[in-house]
Amino acid sequence: MKRVCLIMALGMLSLPALADGDIASGQNKAAACVACHGMEGKVSVPAYPNIAGQQALYLELAMKAYKDGGRSGGQAEVMKAYMSMLGEQDIKDLAAYYASLKP
Amino acid sequence: MKRVCLIMALGMLSLPALADGDIASGQNKAAACVACHGMEGKVSVPAYPNIAGQQALYLELAMKAYKDGGRSGGQAEVMKAYMSMLGEQDIKDLAAYYASLKP
Repeated sequence: MKRVCLIMALGMLSLPALADGDIASGQNKAAACVACHGMEGKVSVPAYPNIAGQQALYLELAMKAYKDGGRSGGQAEVMKAYMSMLGEQDIKDLAAYYASLKP
Repeated sequence: MKRVCLIMALGMLSLPALADGDIASGQNKAAACVACHGMEGKVSVPAYPNIAGQQALYLELAMKAYKDGGRSGGQAEVMKAYMSMLGEQDIKDLAAYYASLKP
């Protein structure tokens, strides 16, 4: 447990800055996300996550992880393919948009 | 886009069975999760995900991915350390508990 707490503490020290995406731009860029993440971020497939109202920074980090190959298994290959088409600002905008929705 | 759709279709064909965890058992096992994921799955640290009301199967798959090393970066080392202490049923119970909470 001590090791876990140490790793957690170090992780919190290195948290990146807050996301600063544009909600309206994110909404315009979200068309492709609907197929899996549903209208307004609520899914019907049990293996996929709801993302409406999720923390913007977490969404940003998750999208970057998929893009950079930091996540494997599940739908990681699909996510990597989509994320490879997106730039830094696109990811921030999508994160801001989904974070703004009611869970 | 065709490649993405094919991968997505293949992914949906291989979806595992629904989670069948026990909510009450999950609540009892969730004490360690509170530090990062907050009381009842709502977080205060922007880099961490809210998990209240998330899809049970998605939560199960995510926990297994952390345990098996299928996710890296972010808090993956912390999650792996915690998940290494959990068995299959523990993971299903935690997934059922968090999925049962109001987002």
